[in-house]
Formats: sequence, structure tokens, C-alpha cells
Amino acid sequence: MAQKNQIKVGFLGFGEVASTLSEGLLARGVEVSTCLEGRSQRSVELAKSTGVGLLDSLTELVELSDFLLSVVVPAEAVSVAKKVGGSFDGVYVDLNNVSPGTVKEVFSHITNGKTVDAAIMGGIKNGLETPIIASGEFAKNFAVLNQYGMNIEVIGTEIGQASGLKMLRSAYTKGVSALLFEAFHAAYQMEVDETLLRYLTQSEGSHFPASANSRLTSSAYHSRRRAQEMEEVVKFLTEYTDPVISRATCEFFQSLPDKTGPMPKKPEKYGEVFRKVDKNRL
Amino acid sequence: MAQKNQIKVGFLGFGEVASTLSEGLLARGVEVSTCLEGRSQRSVELAKSTGVGLLDSLTELVELSDFLLSVVVPAEAVSVAKKVGGSFDGVYVDLNNVSPGTVKEVFSHITNGKTVDAAIMGGIKNGLETPIIASGEFAKNFAVLNQYGMNIEVIGTEIGQASGLKMLRSAYTKGVSALLFEAFHAAYQMEVDETLLRYLTQSEGSHFPASANSRLTSSAYHSRRRAQEMEEVVKFLTEYTDPVISRATCEFFQSLPDKTGPMPKKPEKYGEVFRKVDKNRL
Repeated sequence: MAQKNQIKVGFLGFGEVASTLSEGLLARGVEVSTCLEGRSQRSVELAKSTGVGLLDSLTELVELSDFLLSVVVPAEAVSVAKKVGGSFDGVYVDLNNVSPGTVKEVFSHITNGKTVDAAIMGGIKNGLETPIIASGEFAKNFAVLNQYGMNIEVIGTEIGQASGLKMLRSAYTKGVSALLFEAFHAAYQMEVDETLLRYLTQSEGSHFPASANSRLTSSAYHSRRRAQEMEEVVKFLTEYTDPVISRATCEFFQSLPDKTGPMPKKPEKYGEVFRKVDKNRL
Repeated sequence: MAQKNQIKVGFLGFGEVASTLSEGLLARGVEVSTCLEGRSQRSVELAKSTGVGLLDSLTELVELSDFLLSVVVPAEAVSVAKKVGGSFDGVYVDLNNVSPGTVKEVFSHITNGKTVDAAIMGGIKNGLETPIIASGEFAKNFAVLNQYGMNIEVIGTEIGQASGLKMLRSAYTKGVSALLFEAFHAAYQMEVDETLLRYLTQSEGSHFPASANSRLTSSAYHSRRRAQEMEEVVKFLTEYTDPVISRATCEFFQSLPDKTGPMPKKPEKYGEVFRKVDKNRL
């Protein structure tokens, strides 16, 4: 039974993020619920195993919750908000990996809720302590959950700042990955890649060799997804600048799968990727 | 007077690099000379103040020297080699900031010398200890000068590897600079640039804020020169890959002067640059 004054958090969608945050919040005495109407078998099982309250309808979840955290797949961010509509008057947090434009569209449907733009920074592997940034007039209301072990940083008062910051970070790291690929593919053919790594370590820092290898192998393995994400980045950046580098990064990731050929598992070393590319070119 | 067995180094061109290396070599007992025929007033004065031997003609310099180090402006790298031609049979080192293609053209004129492709890594401010990379069959002959305090690393046996490596490093750092500009210009307009700096520091290392500021301000101040250098990089990389990112980086630097307007001195903080760009856009 819910105790009096117990904080009530509802999750819209129930994947890895919801499951991880729920575990931590439940352990700190927060009442956590979700609604399984229309969710996947995987979500149903995950919710059951996490031990959150299972409600039959979104209407019940909306009525019960002080906070609604939207953690669906990006394509569902708007449709789930439409279903909640004007009936929710608590704190509505969009935590999805979507652009500021999409966040604004999401919030156009939440007419009575206190809307918060939020983004998870880094993997959810750190549990409840995973850094989350939040922006908007009501971001401070969301940050109340820090009292229950969450790690929310309010970064500004405007909707779009949190999701925008996450996109900019993504634009930067994906751009670096594409650039690394271009420079190191040439260096590899010239047999100077290890020397280049060593000299760049002097300017880029001691983490550079490991970080470069990880970015090069991930780029090849996730190229299609990166291309899609970069399409969103380009759309977003166009509001602020002529994004020549991000457009080129998008083009790079679009053409990469044809260059590498099928990539059934993530390579361990970047050399494997370049050997595949060079072989396909012959 | 030259002592018996004293190593004799001749400089083709006499700017900051020649002057700095000469000082160190002279202090270690090496005989250092240059020829002032056709050199600028600045070179003449620099050579005189450094105290190197001054020869009247290239012919004398060629006859006297065991090593000839070419440190002219990039546009003169080929013409100075033509003048030396087939008459030199010592170690001919091209230290100019030119592409592997240009180095090969240079060496087509040095028909009897032991040619070495070499590149200065980083500023010459560390004096004789400034790292220099060298490649080619005779790179090890050049590295004999390490006995006299130089810091030469042989990185391979092919002509083009040293100059190519330097170009690749340059392609990487200039690409990062352009990418930083694109991401941080948007972040600045969204008022999240300081938060973005902080979050990227987590993945990029503790040097990131200072390095980003330096790259952003230098990019704006040296944009025309960067554009020219990127044109060379693109030409070079096209032999190995379709350089989509480097082409975009070149385009970025080509368009930057129009965006910033005149930049009489290097700004201290990147914010100054973005304010200029935004003002010019209004």
C-alpha cells in the first residue's frame, strides 16, 4: 500500500532505463508504477521482474502519478504524450533521445502538466546515479527526485536546452569518430597509424589510443544507426548554423556500410575494419 | 676553422627553424653554414646573429656540407632542390611543411643525394630537442645528428611517410577545430556552451576546455591559412580515401573569414568569436 506523502513516479514505456531507475527508486521507498497496455512482451517481463506497480490503463497511471517519466522509443515520444494529453497535471519529463524540435512537439500535447526536457548523459549502467540533465521552467521540480538518489542537474530554464545539449555532444563525438576514420584509414594504408596514434596522444591526452580504437570499431559496427542519428543532428543544427561538418559526418556514416560490407560483430581492433574496407575496394 | 671529422650541416633557407637548430648544433661543435644568395633581409640578419658560416654561393654550400637541410617556405621547396640538383651527394633532408607528393617532386631533382623525408612535429620552441620524424631509406643517416642533440625519430623506410604523417595529424586537429566550432557555436546560441564543455571533458579528458578554447580562437584567427592547408590535405587524402570530412573542413575554413569579418588580433575567449559571427549575421 502507498504511504501517505509517498512520492509516486510513473513510467511511460518500460525498457532498460525505466527498469534501472525503478530499481533504485523502489529501494529508496518511492512508489513506482507503469502501465503495460500496448507494451512489448519484453517490457511486460521487465516490469514484472523489477517489481513495479502494474496498472491496467494509462488513465490510472496518470491519476496515480506525481511524476510521469517518458522513456519510450524515440518514434513513440509524441504518440505517448498525445495519449496522456491534458489530463495530467503533475511533472511530465521527456527523457527520450529526441531533438529539441520533437520535445517541443511532445509538450504541445501536455497542456496541463509541468513539462521538463531531460536527457540521460552516458549509459544507464551507473544506475540511479547516472547523470541526467534537465531544462525548462519546471526542471527544478523534477530535481526534487535527487532527494531519492537521482543525479539530475538543472542546466537551464528553456525547453530544448537539455535535449539540444545531448545532440550537440553526440554531433561532436560522432564527428570525431568520422574524422578519426578518415585520417587513420589513410595512416593504416601508409603504415604509420601507430606513430600517428602516439603523436596525437601528445596533444589529445593519454586516453586517446583506447578512445580512438573504441570510436573506430563502434563507427563501423553501428554505422547505420549513426547515419540516422546524424540526420536528426543536421536538421537541428541548421537552426543555428550551416552545419557543413555534421552534414559530411552524416554522409560518411551513410556510405560506410557499403565500404565495410556486413559487420556481424563488433571488431576488437580498428585494423580489422580497415582490412575489410580495403578488401572490398579491390 | 673546421676541425677534422667535424660534422658539417648546411641550411637551405634561414628562418626560425634554421636559426633555432643552428644555435643548438653550433653549441655542440657542429659546423653550420648557409648561403645568403637570394635570401630575404630577415634571413640575412638572422643568420648573422646566429653566427653560422656565411657562404657566397649554393655551390660552395653544396661542396662543404655533409647534410643539407631544406627549411624554406613551402612554395620554394622544389625550386631550391632544382638549384642543388645532381651536384650534392650527402644527406639531403626536406624538412618543409609540404605534402608527400611535393616531397617526391623535390627528390626527383636530387639525383645523387641520400634523400630523407622529414617533418617537425610541434613548434620549434623546444630548440634542438623539438621532435622531428623522418622516413626513407636514408632516414637513419639523418638520425646520426641525434648524437649532436637532435631528436629525430625514424618512422619508416618510405619517402612520404613522415610528411604524410604530419599532414594526417594536421587533418585531424583541423577537423576537430571545425567540428568544435560548429557544435559550440550552436551551444553558445543556446546558452549551454559551458555545460557542453563540462560534459565533453568527461569523455575527452581534463585538457579539453583549454584545448577547445585555443582551437576555437586559433581557427578564427588563422582561417585563411587553415583553408589553404586543408586544400593540400584533401589533395593528399584523395589517394587513400574519399575525404568527405576533410573536404567539409576545407569548406568550413574557406567560409569562416566572411562570417567573422576582419580579425586583427587573436581573441582570448571563444565567446568573442561567436559574438562577431552572430553580429555579422544580423
